[in-house]
Amino acid sequence: MSKKRVVVAGMGFGGLRAAKALAENAVELTMVDRNNYHLFQPLLYQVATAGLEQEAIAYPLRGLTRRWRDASFLLAEISGIDLTGKCVLTDAGMVPYDYLVIAAGSRTNFFGMESIAAHAFDLKRLDQAEDLRNHILLMFERASREPDPERRSALLTFVIVGGGPTGVEFAGALRELIVYVLSQDYPAISVTESRIILVEAAGSLLGAMPLDLRRYACQKLLSMGVEVLLENRVVGATAETVEMDGGAVIASHTLFWSAGVSAAEVAEYLQGVERGAAGRIVVQPDLSIKGHPEVFVVGDMACFLEEGAPLPMIAPVATQQGAYVARAILAREQGRSLPPFHYYDKGSMATIGRSCAVAAAAGFKFRGYIAWLAWLLLHLYYLIGFRNRLVVMMNWTYAYWFHERQVRLITAKKRRAVSL
Amino acid sequence: MSKKRVVVAGMGFGGLRAAKALAENAVELTMVDRNNYHLFQPLLYQVATAGLEQEAIAYPLRGLTRRWRDASFLLAEISGIDLTGKCVLTDAGMVPYDYLVIAAGSRTNFFGMESIAAHAFDLKRLDQAEDLRNHILLMFERASREPDPERRSALLTFVIVGGGPTGVEFAGALRELIVYVLSQDYPAISVTESRIILVEAAGSLLGAMPLDLRRYACQKLLSMGVEVLLENRVVGATAETVEMDGGAVIASHTLFWSAGVSAAEVAEYLQGVERGAAGRIVVQPDLSIKGHPEVFVVGDMACFLEEGAPLPMIAPVATQQGAYVARAILAREQGRSLPPFHYYDKGSMATIGRSCAVAAAAGFKFRGYIAWLAWLLLHLYYLIGFRNRLVVMMNWTYAYWFHERQVRLITAKKRRAVSL
Repeated sequence: MSKKRVVVAGMGFGGLRAAKALAENAVELTMVDRNNYHLFQPLLYQVATAGLEQEAIAYPLRGLTRRWRDASFLLAEISGIDLTGKCVLTDAGMVPYDYLVIAAGSRTNFFGMESIAAHAFDLKRLDQAEDLRNHILLMFERASREPDPERRSALLTFVIVGGGPTGVEFAGALRELIVYVLSQDYPAISVTESRIILVEAAGSLLGAMPLDLRRYACQKLLSMGVEVLLENRVVGATAETVEMDGGAVIASHTLFWSAGVSAAEVAEYLQGVERGAAGRIVVQPDLSIKGHPEVFVVGDMACFLEEGAPLPMIAPVATQQGAYVARAILAREQGRSLPPFHYYDKGSMATIGRSCAVAAAAGFKFRGYIAWLAWLLLHLYYLIGFRNRLVVMMNWTYAYWFHERQVRLITAKKRRAVSL
Repeated sequence: MSKKRVVVAGMGFGGLRAAKALAENAVELTMVDRNNYHLFQPLLYQVATAGLEQEAIAYPLRGLTRRWRDASFLLAEISGIDLTGKCVLTDAGMVPYDYLVIAAGSRTNFFGMESIAAHAFDLKRLDQAEDLRNHILLMFERASREPDPERRSALLTFVIVGGGPTGVEFAGALRELIVYVLSQDYPAISVTESRIILVEAAGSLLGAMPLDLRRYACQKLLSMGVEVLLENRVVGATAETVEMDGGAVIASHTLFWSAGVSAAEVAEYLQGVERGAAGRIVVQPDLSIKGHPEVFVVGDMACFLEEGAPLPMIAPVATQQGAYVARAILAREQGRSLPPFHYYDKGSMATIGRSCAVAAAAGFKFRGYIAWLAWLLLHLYYLIGFRNRLVVMMNWTYAYWFHERQVRLITAKKRRAVSL
């Protein structure tokens, strides 16, 4: 009997874990991704705030897959999925499958607000992090030569939408970049001239956290000098303004959006399949699609109900689902079946600034230095590759000792030429 | 008496050295550059061959200048120089000067061959190095799925023009990338399928070196599997072919040009000033311009005759000239004058591959391991910034031990979308 062809579409946290577990396990594995690297998305905000070089959070996929027998990698953009013909369509040709694992992740959700989609920065891809870093540094370059106080203030006002971990971590990292580094680089710009405004629609930041940690995180951000606007929404933007739902307009050249994600475009290629909130694919208890037991969806793209609510779109869910699906495929090949998928919630954490984070895990709550240390160690642990861990650790140590972020480079020539 | 305004235009090796020597020396210093970083150009080829991340060879200029009193940095593109009005025109406004140091470097010289300018890669800027790396890796991705042997061969043929240090170092580094790393990443592509052709118009490589070192370098490259075409010229190109002056056409998607440089565009803004070969500004014995003793030119842009021949366009010349000009300005302010500039030739070196380089200095000649070690140490020494030195050293150590280059990322999304 010939080996079954398993195609894994998308090599984020879910796809990579599934592929690892499937490799060298008597299947013919094909991995498809539009990039030739695995991206460690949780640290993108540190690239955007000049704390890390972009290469440190990307790992070349062929560096992983070349050790696996009967496994191949295809650099391609997926353009369709033929569920009947059991075939993935890509710009590099058709890829037939016996089993398909769809792990294409999510994209930023602007909830149909076109002016925001046109002007806001978001963080999903490596090039977006570099763009945002270039933009932030350019705002300071332009402010340093801007005589008009109003225009100068608009250049130095940064609006962040979304009080989840990304928004909170980005706000803290940006504030520290300004206070510790840019204030030294631009002696003519006072720290008090720059504003960071964190906008959250709900009544508190970090909604997934216990109440006291939410309060602690908010207090900490406020004490660092971040303005927090709770129960507020951003409803529109131009290149130089941000519009609030009450009608108020903030003069700001920088709008960062982390207020929502929806399933990646690939979800739309699945004809006749039920979609849940945010365009996610509704999956069965074993993460397969109804009527197509050979097709599995994992990670952000899967809408898996547990206790009546869909699981959150976060890396630990994707990783556990990736591992489950690999086991499910191998079990089915052996004529067995697995009990339904169950998410084991290990807790969540967010870093706010230097020596300061919040973490909730297994009923315990941590905050401050100990949570921060745990955050650092866990992120280093989950990063892929010895070299990347070294580079990241070195950057963190350097930043901690010297209050310095050396990757404050404006690298995109074309973008700069336009905006200067 | 108010302090004299000194403007340094361009923060490469020459400008940076001049600025360092002028800072805090009773002048008002303004530094202008189109980038916010100093670029260590000699290692650009290692970025292009996936050996280093781009951030490791760039250092933020404000990180240097913020320690200097009476010094300011202006991120701007120079659009003109008014010698009569003593003023530099930029896209960020006019900058008046009492003394001007022009250190704007050089650009690639395609000698008017438009088809080559349109299709060749060259290495002057950071983004070019990233582009070239993306392109090389893409050629392997495309070859790995190309069934036609002729097309496949064209994708895997790399033509390098120019047998100077850049061409030799790039050829060696690319060959090692292919032999040690890509051969593992792409098991379906044999090492013997890829070709690297190094084309040099003269009768030997590394013309500035002693004869035996030239021969050694050529032998070494040949033994590594690089084809060397001496006394040959490339005269045209398309996206998929390279045309030789004999009429022969090589099927190749990659043409790398390091066969010539000429003075940067800024040289053209100097009206009525004598230009030498390659558009360089002819300077007086004190590196000033004839008729404008307050304007100095240093580095690649300066045409300084020593023993009847212009000095080469290399970093050590720029550095020494930068230091000289700073002393000349300070001396003149004290009513003294300096003896004419004299270049002290410390020798030259080029690395060919793993544990192998050639070096000629002070009448001594070195080759092999000892020259390679000297090359590594000198480049680490001249790199700016402790962090960058650490990152580079770590990458080199990693590459040496593990035969691994982890920065083999295809990062430019738009470019890729077009060429796939």
